[in-house]
Amino acid sequence: MHDFQQRYQQICQHVRQTQRLAAAAEVLSWDEHTYMPPEAGPYRAEQLQLLAGLVHQRRTDPDWGAQLEELAAWAEEHRPGEPETVNLLRLRRDWRRQKRLPQELVEELAHTTSRAQQVWAESRPRNDWNAFRPWLEKVLKLKRQQAEALGYQQHIYDALLEDYEPGATTAQVRAVLEPLGESLRQLVQRIADSPVKTAPGLLHRHWPRSEQEKLGCFVAEQLGFSFRRGRLDVTAHPFCTRLGPHDVRITTRYDEQFFPSAFFSILHEAGHGLYEQGLPAQEYGLPLGDSVSLGMHESQSRLWENHVGRSLAFWRWCFPKARQHFPQALADVSLEEFHRAVNHVEPSLVRVEADEVTYNLHILVRFELEQELLTGQLAVADLPEAWNARYEHYLGVQVPDVARGVMQDVHWSAGLVGYFPTYSLGNLYAAQLMEAAAREVGPLEEQWSRGEFAPLLEWMRQHVHHHGRRYDPAELIQQATGSPPRAEPLLEYLHGRFGAIYQL
Amino acid sequence: MHDFQQRYQQICQHVRQTQRLAAAAEVLSWDEHTYMPPEAGPYRAEQLQLLAGLVHQRRTDPDWGAQLEELAAWAEEHRPGEPETVNLLRLRRDWRRQKRLPQELVEELAHTTSRAQQVWAESRPRNDWNAFRPWLEKVLKLKRQQAEALGYQQHIYDALLEDYEPGATTAQVRAVLEPLGESLRQLVQRIADSPVKTAPGLLHRHWPRSEQEKLGCFVAEQLGFSFRRGRLDVTAHPFCTRLGPHDVRITTRYDEQFFPSAFFSILHEAGHGLYEQGLPAQEYGLPLGDSVSLGMHESQSRLWENHVGRSLAFWRWCFPKARQHFPQALADVSLEEFHRAVNHVEPSLVRVEADEVTYNLHILVRFELEQELLTGQLAVADLPEAWNARYEHYLGVQVPDVARGVMQDVHWSAGLVGYFPTYSLGNLYAAQLMEAAAREVGPLEEQWSRGEFAPLLEWMRQHVHHHGRRYDPAELIQQATGSPPRAEPLLEYLHGRFGAIYQL
Repeated sequence: MHDFQQRYQQICQHVRQTQRLAAAAEVLSWDEHTYMPPEAGPYRAEQLQLLAGLVHQRRTDPDWGAQLEELAAWAEEHRPGEPETVNLLRLRRDWRRQKRLPQELVEELAHTTSRAQQVWAESRPRNDWNAFRPWLEKVLKLKRQQAEALGYQQHIYDALLEDYEPGATTAQVRAVLEPLGESLRQLVQRIADSPVKTAPGLLHRHWPRSEQEKLGCFVAEQLGFSFRRGRLDVTAHPFCTRLGPHDVRITTRYDEQFFPSAFFSILHEAGHGLYEQGLPAQEYGLPLGDSVSLGMHESQSRLWENHVGRSLAFWRWCFPKARQHFPQALADVSLEEFHRAVNHVEPSLVRVEADEVTYNLHILVRFELEQELLTGQLAVADLPEAWNARYEHYLGVQVPDVARGVMQDVHWSAGLVGYFPTYSLGNLYAAQLMEAAAREVGPLEEQWSRGEFAPLLEWMRQHVHHHGRRYDPAELIQQATGSPPRAEPLLEYLHGRFGAIYQL
Repeated sequence: MHDFQQRYQQICQHVRQTQRLAAAAEVLSWDEHTYMPPEAGPYRAEQLQLLAGLVHQRRTDPDWGAQLEELAAWAEEHRPGEPETVNLLRLRRDWRRQKRLPQELVEELAHTTSRAQQVWAESRPRNDWNAFRPWLEKVLKLKRQQAEALGYQQHIYDALLEDYEPGATTAQVRAVLEPLGESLRQLVQRIADSPVKTAPGLLHRHWPRSEQEKLGCFVAEQLGFSFRRGRLDVTAHPFCTRLGPHDVRITTRYDEQFFPSAFFSILHEAGHGLYEQGLPAQEYGLPLGDSVSLGMHESQSRLWENHVGRSLAFWRWCFPKARQHFPQALADVSLEEFHRAVNHVEPSLVRVEADEVTYNLHILVRFELEQELLTGQLAVADLPEAWNARYEHYLGVQVPDVARGVMQDVHWSAGLVGYFPTYSLGNLYAAQLMEAAAREVGPLEEQWSRGEFAPLLEWMRQHVHHHGRRYDPAELIQQATGSPPRAEPLLEYLHGRFGAIYQL
């Protein structure tokens, strides 16, 4: 094919143009969460619906699709493994998937989830489940339609999971997460039985917001997050979004009475941001400029938040700095006490503030419930009760209200059903990647205690970020670590860290 | 025509959909000015180019245009004066104008002005004229192409002016502004010769930013600006933009060493915001939901900033409040001293901080120069010198650098050529409207001194805002005030206020 390059560029030009519109929708969505005035919501939903429709139309354009099919087939045969071929094959997979979705469904989903998120944000502080419930019902009905349109072999949940974790199935994920949950419940019990007690009380002092912001930005920057290509803002639910090749925005929420809330969510979202900032910018909009999966994304955020950010080595470097920002709160606190406090393990209500040991139990609750919601086995009306019962069973806690219960997460209102298990997969991947990085980079903890994070970031850049979406998550983990995805490194890491703290 | 309503709704549906895209571009543009990270600029320009192209395509869609022409012709004959007819005739005027512009030119203008504004914002603080100059040249070249494509009868400048002040011509505007300039220069001279000297020094004290923000928001809200349907943010150059039917955003800049900078720009932009928030929301996107002209818009901002905000009556109410926010700066200042200070007249360098008497002289400089730039009579390379000479002539001041000289305004970088004279027209209209409102509403100043601004706002809502774009500016002024646009009320108002202060 003499005009391969020219035809390839035409395919890409179409994709890049579509991406400009999709990224415009991301700007509108970011603004909706950060700065939009209260009464502007309904119109914003109309705009997001329109843009989603235009994007979907372009992604399923039959003329473009026909050219893509032809070129991808030729490249697969004549240029296997080349970057252009990788892009073409991934685009073909997306196109074949996208065109199963009717235009009206895509638009209705965009509009409904935009409104549902607004209703969620307004009704959560008021503990108003009844205001939110009909919107969740609407979203679930549309997600079921979406799953049916996409198709699946075994479980309706597979259809949605594929969007977030390509190649993974519900059965596979259950086979990993259920035994992991069992091991974690045992570890939680051993920690509860330990004679060593950690004291998180010192974290509930007064932490002025402006100082939290300064320290958070400073640390994010030291980890490698570029504020020339990114921002930090405030939202009800922290997130990371990318608005362009050089525009990665993270958010947090500040609690002046609890230090970890903002600090670790900034580290977490900065981890996502480092991944996005590390993707090849010149391939932005194309598969080679895109992230692998949500699980892989989460591996990057959890790695910086927990493996690095809750390590004793990190605090050897950071604690003196924190003390400058919070001279009062930290006056009578030692490094070791502080480190134990930020690693305090205790079953609790809110996922985003859970410790590392109980975190995956929060995920299990959601993973189970959303499967049941999707199949219809569980009605939305019965969800709060089921949620509370599951929290009692897995975590042994009583849920006092919906704001700290079933309405704590934005995900379902945003249509993100099938998303939660990727958090646990991310924890698995993070532990595997850290194990491999420690083997290859050398004394990581020594580096962190000097504030040197570039060697670890560089390893992630090489082994994860630079590949874009060339591999499926399981392939990438195999390639980067030498093993398929598995739970043992996570359990070893948790037993190592918390065994030391709690003298198990 | 039995299906008139149905066909009308189809026409409107197309327009409303286009507006959703145009408003999305406004969100991107607002973000570019407020929060976008520095390196995100080039991609944002690509997005704005794409959206401008899509909007233009829809506005010049030949099928839609043919339906519009048919329906407008019928409505003009059979339903003169009805709201639907007003919308159709205004849409037809816009459509006939828009379709003269080639798609590529529209896209190139959007892209170039987005980049040029970024370059302006970066190079202005560095006083870097050479970095900005080539971008201004690019913009002017495109504006000339635009003017030629739009067509004109007498002066190329007419073609651009029509976008901002429908129905006005360069010759008409010159005929008003040149004699006004002469009268103002005389008034400036009389003030300079007055034995009464005002002292603006007290305004150069320390005004903590957070207190400026609180007072500014409070006053904007008291005037009637709704923060449930709007916001206030920070930008290099203050502006007001509308992102949806219930989303009006204003911006300011804070100078901790100079009180008027933020305070009066907040009042000014809030005045624009009150107009936007007062337009019929259900007609958003259609002519009856749109503002009349930039001049009319400016009348609303200048009215609240100056007629109200610099009056002694206003400060009778506001001064005690300002004192609570700035106990140190205002400790030894009386109401009367403060009022004289904020009305200090002195020829100066920066338009947005100019007093009311010299303000229109700043406009005259720009109005003359942009005509010469557009015809090519003046080369961009010679612009700083010409600017400085004109400032010396009209205002008697020496321009020390480009940041306070030719690069002080965002307008030209944004492609807003032909825009400046509407500021002076706004001052004319404001004085005429205030004269009429005072006749009809009663003792306005008494109301202001009690913090009552609703009666004046209500008069503006009825006589200006509620009409949307039903009338051309000259028609609306005639209707609201009983006279055509004229300069006398402005001169009377200025002689009244400054005659009292300077005992002329």
